[in-house]
Amino acid sequence: MMTQLGARVWVVPGGRIPFGAASPEPEYTSFDQLCVLNATDAAADLTVDFYYEDSDPVGPYRLVVGARRIRHVRVNDLIDPEAVRLDRPYGCVLRSPVPVVVQFLRQDTRRPGMVALAGAMAYPAE
Amino acid sequence: MMTQLGARVWVVPGGRIPFGAASPEPEYTSFDQLCVLNATDAAADLTVDFYYEDSDPVGPYRLVVGARRIRHVRVNDLIDPEAVRLDRPYGCVLRSPVPVVVQFLRQDTRRPGMVALAGAMAYPAE
Amino acid sequence: MMTQLGARVWVVPGGRIPFGAASPEPEYTSFDQLCVLNATDAAADLTVDFYYEDSDPVGPYRLVVGARRIRHVRVNDLIDPEAVRLDRPYGCVLRSPVPVVVQFLRQDTRRPGMVALAGAMAYPAE
Amino acid sequence: MMTQLGARVWVVPGGRIPFGAASPEPEYTSFDQLCVLNATDAAADLTVDFYYEDSDPVGPYRLVVGARRIRHVRVNDLIDPEAVRLDRPYGCVLRSPVPVVVQFLRQDTRRPGMVALAGAMAYPAE
Repeated sequence: MMTQLGARVWVVPGGRIPFGAASPEPEYTSFDQLCVLNATDAAADLTVDFYYEDSDPVGPYRLVVGARRIRHVRVNDLIDPEAVRLDRPYGCVLRSPVPVVVQFLRQDTRRPGMVALAGAMAYPAE
Repeated sequence: MMTQLGARVWVVPGGRIPFGAASPEPEYTSFDQLCVLNATDAAADLTVDFYYEDSDPVGPYRLVVGARRIRHVRVNDLIDPEAVRLDRPYGCVLRSPVPVVVQFLRQDTRRPGMVALAGAMAYPAE
Repeated sequence: MMTQLGARVWVVPGGRIPFGAASPEPEYTSFDQLCVLNATDAAADLTVDFYYEDSDPVGPYRLVVGARRIRHVRVNDLIDPEAVRLDRPYGCVLRSPVPVVVQFLRQDTRRPGMVALAGAMAYPAE
Repeated sequence: MMTQLGARVWVVPGGRIPFGAASPEPEYTSFDQLCVLNATDAAADLTVDFYYEDSDPVGPYRLVVGARRIRHVRVNDLIDPEAVRLDRPYGCVLRSPVPVVVQFLRQDTRRPGMVALAGAMAYPAE
């Protein structure tokens, strides 16, 4: 299999973890998710920086994606250097030492008995 | 952090603010949203022009996104030079003096107890 | 305003008009939609060809988008040379003599009281 | 019609077939779907490799898309060399000997009476 697929910098401007879930957790938790595919033969040690409307960027968060592995990370679970607050608009920039591909997904379960989904490929900036 | 990410012109052809909301506002308002990330060290003074099916474009609307900030703007809230009418098909073109990244999101809450989401990265035209 | 934005060939592989609507029409009709923005100073006389799983492509369908106008067309409404059947998987290729930008949107209202949305920017092939 | 549209390698990082369906099958089955459009005059004999979080990639799966045809394949239906398990995060890489265009769609019907959709154009890597 080919080992170089994708880009080294990816951008998601439209993040906001929905606040609350009216269905059973954990499968119906509301979340924003970053999905990374690393087709290379080297582990990818990514950094993620979060941008906000009213304060300086926070980061870097670290995210390791093994060689020839994917990783789906809920933004809700990122806590170091600080948790990303629910219901707060954010954007993020992912940087990887090797080419990867990044997709964004939101699951919104704020209303009882309901699931809403939204997704987009992230923007490959470099 | 790197300061140049993205493009200077972005296009969203498929806008239409859903008319009505059958769940509590403001969190369940129906809206179209433009999400902009500006990773540069300079404030971005964007202009937005709206295109319609049956009349000339309207604009420019102004939208400032601070240095190293994001901004999520509901199209519902754009009122100068004129409000974008609900339920009217539109497209828009965003122009920025510095590179930015733009994502589009729709929240549709017209039906009681329900949320529908749709999103897409805007198209980077230049 | 700038007059050249976008590409001349756009592709949507994943079409399928949902069959049926369990909510009041016309606002809750199930549909697939093609949204075109033409920022140029010339009317765009587009052609659209539909591809299927089990038969030869059908087309061209014609679609005019005025100068500096958008147009949102429900695939349900395309009937010449033949109607696109509901619930039949299709893909389509749009070709324009001038650069345009194309977005795809699906509204699925098959279940009572519910709206589901899915969208994506079309793929700019040329 | 033109015969070369698209790219030869496409990537979807964010796969996960929703587990369970609370509405009548088969039209309301939960699924992930890969939609391929082949506008060329030659049949496309694609290979698909699946990447996981915790094990080596599995593949190649084969997927034939006829000349000037589309094909919408539910990931649920891919069983050779092995079935893609429900509710397991995956990513996939599609490779084609001729240019094609690939779109990703998810239908989530886990909750009674409900449909959620999410879609994105796949990422064209080469």
